[in-house]
Amino acid sequence: MHANPHAYAFASDNTAPATPEAINALVAANQHPQLPSYGADAITAQAIAALREYFEAPSAEVFFVFSGTAANALAISSLRRSFESVFCTHEAHIEKDESAAPEFFAHGLKLHLVGDARGDKVDLAACTRVLAGNRGMHSAQPRVMSITQATEFGTCYTVAELKTLRAFCDLHGLHLHMDGARFANALASTGATPAELSWKSGVDVLSLGGTKNGVCASEVLIFFKPELARGFLNLRKQGGQLLSKMRFLSAPWLGALPQFIARARHANANATQLANGMLALGLKLAFPSEASGIFVHMPDAVVARLQQRDWHFYKFMEPDVHRLMCAWNTEPTAIATFLSDLKECL
Amino acid sequence: MHANPHAYAFASDNTAPATPEAINALVAANQHPQLPSYGADAITAQAIAALREYFEAPSAEVFFVFSGTAANALAISSLRRSFESVFCTHEAHIEKDESAAPEFFAHGLKLHLVGDARGDKVDLAACTRVLAGNRGMHSAQPRVMSITQATEFGTCYTVAELKTLRAFCDLHGLHLHMDGARFANALASTGATPAELSWKSGVDVLSLGGTKNGVCASEVLIFFKPELARGFLNLRKQGGQLLSKMRFLSAPWLGALPQFIARARHANANATQLANGMLALGLKLAFPSEASGIFVHMPDAVVARLQQRDWHFYKFMEPDVHRLMCAWNTEPTAIATFLSDLKECL
Amino acid sequence: MHANPHAYAFASDNTAPATPEAINALVAANQHPQLPSYGADAITAQAIAALREYFEAPSAEVFFVFSGTAANALAISSLRRSFESVFCTHEAHIEKDESAAPEFFAHGLKLHLVGDARGDKVDLAACTRVLAGNRGMHSAQPRVMSITQATEFGTCYTVAELKTLRAFCDLHGLHLHMDGARFANALASTGATPAELSWKSGVDVLSLGGTKNGVCASEVLIFFKPELARGFLNLRKQGGQLLSKMRFLSAPWLGALPQFIARARHANANATQLANGMLALGLKLAFPSEASGIFVHMPDAVVARLQQRDWHFYKFMEPDVHRLMCAWNTEPTAIATFLSDLKECL
Amino acid sequence: MHANPHAYAFASDNTAPATPEAINALVAANQHPQLPSYGADAITAQAIAALREYFEAPSAEVFFVFSGTAANALAISSLRRSFESVFCTHEAHIEKDESAAPEFFAHGLKLHLVGDARGDKVDLAACTRVLAGNRGMHSAQPRVMSITQATEFGTCYTVAELKTLRAFCDLHGLHLHMDGARFANALASTGATPAELSWKSGVDVLSLGGTKNGVCASEVLIFFKPELARGFLNLRKQGGQLLSKMRFLSAPWLGALPQFIARARHANANATQLANGMLALGLKLAFPSEASGIFVHMPDAVVARLQQRDWHFYKFMEPDVHRLMCAWNTEPTAIATFLSDLKECL
Repeated sequence: MHANPHAYAFASDNTAPATPEAINALVAANQHPQLPSYGADAITAQAIAALREYFEAPSAEVFFVFSGTAANALAISSLRRSFESVFCTHEAHIEKDESAAPEFFAHGLKLHLVGDARGDKVDLAACTRVLAGNRGMHSAQPRVMSITQATEFGTCYTVAELKTLRAFCDLHGLHLHMDGARFANALASTGATPAELSWKSGVDVLSLGGTKNGVCASEVLIFFKPELARGFLNLRKQGGQLLSKMRFLSAPWLGALPQFIARARHANANATQLANGMLALGLKLAFPSEASGIFVHMPDAVVARLQQRDWHFYKFMEPDVHRLMCAWNTEPTAIATFLSDLKECL
Repeated sequence: MHANPHAYAFASDNTAPATPEAINALVAANQHPQLPSYGADAITAQAIAALREYFEAPSAEVFFVFSGTAANALAISSLRRSFESVFCTHEAHIEKDESAAPEFFAHGLKLHLVGDARGDKVDLAACTRVLAGNRGMHSAQPRVMSITQATEFGTCYTVAELKTLRAFCDLHGLHLHMDGARFANALASTGATPAELSWKSGVDVLSLGGTKNGVCASEVLIFFKPELARGFLNLRKQGGQLLSKMRFLSAPWLGALPQFIARARHANANATQLANGMLALGLKLAFPSEASGIFVHMPDAVVARLQQRDWHFYKFMEPDVHRLMCAWNTEPTAIATFLSDLKECL
Repeated sequence: MHANPHAYAFASDNTAPATPEAINALVAANQHPQLPSYGADAITAQAIAALREYFEAPSAEVFFVFSGTAANALAISSLRRSFESVFCTHEAHIEKDESAAPEFFAHGLKLHLVGDARGDKVDLAACTRVLAGNRGMHSAQPRVMSITQATEFGTCYTVAELKTLRAFCDLHGLHLHMDGARFANALASTGATPAELSWKSGVDVLSLGGTKNGVCASEVLIFFKPELARGFLNLRKQGGQLLSKMRFLSAPWLGALPQFIARARHANANATQLANGMLALGLKLAFPSEASGIFVHMPDAVVARLQQRDWHFYKFMEPDVHRLMCAWNTEPTAIATFLSDLKECL
Repeated sequence: MHANPHAYAFASDNTAPATPEAINALVAANQHPQLPSYGADAITAQAIAALREYFEAPSAEVFFVFSGTAANALAISSLRRSFESVFCTHEAHIEKDESAAPEFFAHGLKLHLVGDARGDKVDLAACTRVLAGNRGMHSAQPRVMSITQATEFGTCYTVAELKTLRAFCDLHGLHLHMDGARFANALASTGATPAELSWKSGVDVLSLGGTKNGVCASEVLIFFKPELARGFLNLRKQGGQLLSKMRFLSAPWLGALPQFIARARHANANATQLANGMLALGLKLAFPSEASGIFVHMPDAVVARLQQRDWHFYKFMEPDVHRLMCAWNTEPTAIATFLSDLKECL
């Protein structure tokens, strides 16, 4: 196996570093010889204000946390009681990729898997069936709908789709949570504003991903209805997600926000280019590539040959759907090299 | 109130920034255009190796986490079943300062408060009373002893004291956990080696604090008995403490370790200097200042006058014991200014 | 609506009273002016011995609890750690009918729904797919398979089927739990001995139902591998399932065991008779009636007319599958009256 | 050791059987060939109505559960969020005798131990100290005060004392929970009405004990403020405390209520007689005997001699305080025999 300088370029968007603007803001924040702890510092206040402005949501409650898993799990924990349950898709990160963290943070939690045929978006008919089968005190009581934007399959909910979900939530007394680990990519893809893609479409609580889009290692929970955030300062601490030196989590956002969509646009554009290259070579996509991910059918033999050339990526669905991810820093040479290798391997 | 450039210098050791060697290592790690995720990168492997070497513990299992609260809560969660309980002092961080995080991560947890008269260290006689009152299936079953080093009162367990606790643990089938949020300060204070102050004295699991000693925002859990770490990779993920871009947590340790004790020695030395200055002014310490904290009796009127000059510090015990903390970056001018102000306020 | 003396005869097997032999044993146990508490009494010791003998399992650990929900939830809780998950069917009581009690007792629990096409039994191919998708620390780790005997659809696992499941469990390091709420009916149906239908077929832990078969209100948890019961006395207490006057839970079993299968045989025979009557009227069964339940297709109009005559039963599956249950005390006149009414309603 | 027919007469009030009126009501309820399940039956409705009338609380929400431990744990679970904590005494059943069941049912729970010097009642000064030390998001937030009536030391809160606690609760936004495992004995002792000793004195939720006072094995949770019971039907099920054949839990109360206080009065009177007998023999009480328990100083040698005569009772406090309990069925001959034996053993 020859050395491949781009070996992990498409393995995940979390193989990429932080953006210069994010890491520089962190380094700058570190210049202060002393700052108040636990979020009482001016940098954190500025970052919160910047996020509120970014979302046109002056009364939103904003909390920095360490990981997207914790953001999701704490959001769910804060929105329900022990016997209340959550709708999500079969492929949702909270179901498939978090080692039952939601069930750990949210005592007594049941997730109802209500994905559509393709698997990436919530199927309201499936939700309706669960609700129809509700046997009162014998059943977990649906209380939250959790959706992922962009989805785990690299597609995006449109504003219209979100509003349909919101209407359903209103009808059935559900809170709407959005796992926005790749919210930036959805912004870039849909062209909607941050507000349009969140609270204006009825999202109550957003897990806003920073890490995957280069904001160092920082995630944000935004409660657009401040009353839903009651007690959340305590819950964040209890969940092990309060950083004493809070500016390390908040400062990168001050650096990152001005270029937040631009960075995601780069990732999306690269994904499009890579997808087009693969299509030109005769491969077929499993899902439309609407954000930074490509889900492509590739025969095992081709995959094996690519792996021999030290390319890393995951099989996502049996029998032959593989995922390739682009990131804010994907380089043209990485794409060119991959496509060239792919051509030889086919 | 006039502006005080040192306002937060003694409020806590978490008002200080990261050390240059830690933040530089972070920035350097960020140069790589792509690295494997979730701890599979070479930097993390190096940091784990460096910590094993630092502790002379080649078979120790090492895990990076985001916060000391999570480190403690996950350690406790991993060491017990739902009906098993933990000995700690009344003033332990896990009891007083973590918003019941241990009880959140460790389902069904009861903490038995067994502090001695002074409050900082475990009183084995109190443990014995709890064990004597054990009513089998009606009682929570003690399974872990958790101690804090340096203690919340700025004192340190000696190696001899630790070995006495270990002997008690052996007798009663207890695991010994050390909350080492200020382990570095205890190293600097006692002169013991990292190994001597941990596994050689019988510590099974150590929460090794980085954040308070300038290691950016990173904490480490070290299981000296690897069999106790079984399943911990899953538990860390489930507890929301797995970072995808792991090098951001691990790289700072590579930078920090060579100066880890030196940085703490600075904090301790400054605390001694500050304590001596206060003693010279006629104040009395509540506890000997063995690490980076000073616990001093100060009349309310004096405190009020200091606060008017924008000095920040906490009252720790009624009626008049206040805490001042030094850090790795405490400056001589801060000490001089504080003592000068204090003299005027007395 | 005219009064129907049999209104609830087929609504559920839990509309029936306790059998005379069970309630008489309870009353007799109540004659003792004083008995040791918490299970230290001689009656409880006799009941445990009787159950061990009944199952030919002299070293089994036997625990009386109040409810089947608690029996299942405590069994699962005791068999796993927080990140370990459970296989069960979509229609399992632990998934559909317990208001997320397993997730409440077993912190962090995820249930993988792996029912077959019919829905009542575990599909090993589905289990294999879950295991194939296991992403290590990112995934909940399957640790227990939980099956229901007789199933929620009134069918029974054969000994051969159980042994196939056991082989799979052995291969993948899974404990095998059986929810035996209607274990008595399965005994009556299969003709297997209690031992053959449990530990001899590889069941590790059995929730043995008493309530539905007339044993007052008492359920039993039997750990056939005693090492799996370590700590369970504490867990039972912690789970709120320790009765101080334990003989009230244990004594009924002494009365009930000699007629345990006979009582279930009566229920099963009545179900067969009722099913045959319905078939003769042209209705179709959704599942074979192997135990005490009948799952029958009935048009909405017919159901409405029966309900007007004050017959109570549940719709179990859309669009038209209804459940009728027989019990140990089902009377011939109830069956005759129902079939007569049904004929008129068709 | 000679056989002692009264061996367990004073060991606990849970060594006694159910009263005739309670068990007879159970047997009578068992005559019905079918009754609706899960509390929809007429007997349960009558029992709820009877309890509401008994407490002069027509809008109270009433729930039958199996065990006092579960009643307490579920009450606490329903009254708080994960980061909210509970005041109780060091000797409270929820702290000392329930194997951390409250911490199991109420995820994240911390109990603040605020007993007075004697240990049986809540010390408001201690509560105030906890509240004064509250550090916001770093601290568990007190939300419930839980008291025991009669106390674990056989004393009773007066109405005046209860009202003082209530005023404190009002001031600090606390719910007031009463563990009334021996509420009947407190009624008999104080002469207050059920309403006066509960909601009229500010109790929000009462765990009303039946088992210890002869009501078969049944406990009741009464929410005097119905809004606090929102969702409790689900929580009871999730906590494994929903009985399908609910009349087995409810019917005994219909039998028991008319003689509820009389039965307790008998126990209390016997305790007084026994206490007087012991005082006459020169022994000293540790606490006034206000209910059915006697806490008496007895030298080890005397205890050993009594145990040789097969008398069973518990040492409650070091070095020499032992507890003897009377029950609804304590017989004069048991008291006479014990005092005679005691005289010989002294």
